[in-house]
Amino acid sequence: MPFAQIYMIEGRTEDMKRAVIEKVSAALVEATNAPKETVRVWITEVPNTNWGIAGVTAKDLGR
Amino acid sequence: MPFAQIYMIEGRTEDMKRAVIEKVSAALVEATNAPKETVRVWITEVPNTNWGIAGVTAKDLGR
Amino acid sequence: MPFAQIYMIEGRTEDMKRAVIEKVSAALVEATNAPKETVRVWITEVPNTNWGIAGVTAKDLGR
Amino acid sequence: MPFAQIYMIEGRTEDMKRAVIEKVSAALVEATNAPKETVRVWITEVPNTNWGIAGVTAKDLGR
Amino acid sequence: MPFAQIYMIEGRTEDMKRAVIEKVSAALVEATNAPKETVRVWITEVPNTNWGIAGVTAKDLGR
Amino acid sequence: MPFAQIYMIEGRTEDMKRAVIEKVSAALVEATNAPKETVRVWITEVPNTNWGIAGVTAKDLGR
Repeated sequence: MPFAQIYMIEGRTEDMKRAVIEKVSAALVEATNAPKETVRVWITEVPNTNWGIAGVTAKDLGR
Repeated sequence: MPFAQIYMIEGRTEDMKRAVIEKVSAALVEATNAPKETVRVWITEVPNTNWGIAGVTAKDLGR
Repeated sequence: MPFAQIYMIEGRTEDMKRAVIEKVSAALVEATNAPKETVRVWITEVPNTNWGIAGVTAKDLGR
Repeated sequence: MPFAQIYMIEGRTEDMKRAVIEKVSAALVEATNAPKETVRVWITEVPNTNWGIAGVTAKDLGR
Repeated sequence: MPFAQIYMIEGRTEDMKRAVIEKVSAALVEATNAPKETVRVWITEVPNTNWGIAGVTAKDLGR
Repeated sequence: MPFAQIYMIEGRTEDMKRAVIEKVSAALVEATNAPKETVRVWITEVPNTNWGIAGVTAKDLGR
């Protein structure tokens, strides 16, 4: 621990997801002084049909 | 905020998911008086092989 | 199913939380035609020290 | 209730996921004395590109 | 991995929560053949005012 | 979006939690180029009685 679960819109590149994992892991180590070996981060990608902003789907908003 | 994460069996139509987002967002506004702009709702669809009801998968139950 | 997990800032009244549960449950039934008996809703309250909006805690924003 | 949400790397067989649901459900009944009918378990599978162990993706670790 | 997040009504004893952690961890090892060292289980306790069953709070149902 | 939900052992100081929110938010902006205004981070603190590492509670491990 600590662990982070990331929610983001589906469709980002593998490189961008790798960057999320690297940078969020580093941020957790910096902020908490936890050993890096104990950090876990996982990304849940949400399709734009399944994400609602103020009651409207991201797809209907053109995202 | 408030935010809602919805879990449901995979396979509902896009219209049904849009309705979930609209109606749950409206319900959160009504119940909490939060400004609609701050509400987020996202749906996690679970395959019927991955959902267990009383220890049996939804698939084995024919759902 | 469906299930909803609600995240909101800690400190709302019991009546408001009851309203969230009632209204979100009704919204899920309306939107999905699922039997009401299968709906579950639970609220995770987040202290204002633990919620970050654009990188600033809700507490520091005066919420 | 109780409910369990399982996170694991994507790609296990249907039989293995069925076993997870059966055994975790049984474990919850044994540990809490809750009626089996009230137990729900669902599995969120995470692609190896989306799972980070100590800041490195499971894919880059060869898993 | 695998990881399990358990949701249950607040108020069970420490011994019962220890049993949940032991038995669910063992179940995950048995079902997936993952090394025990990689298993993590955490319990989110939900107050009875915050848990809704078919639209009614667990508190109002006397649980 | 993106959003991050952080799980960590209960008991860190308010300053440390503020640092988690600041640094994880900045990491998400850097990695995804999302506008900072859309980033949300929330921390779920888990008591050491409720967290299991390889089947043993963090409390029993002296953490």
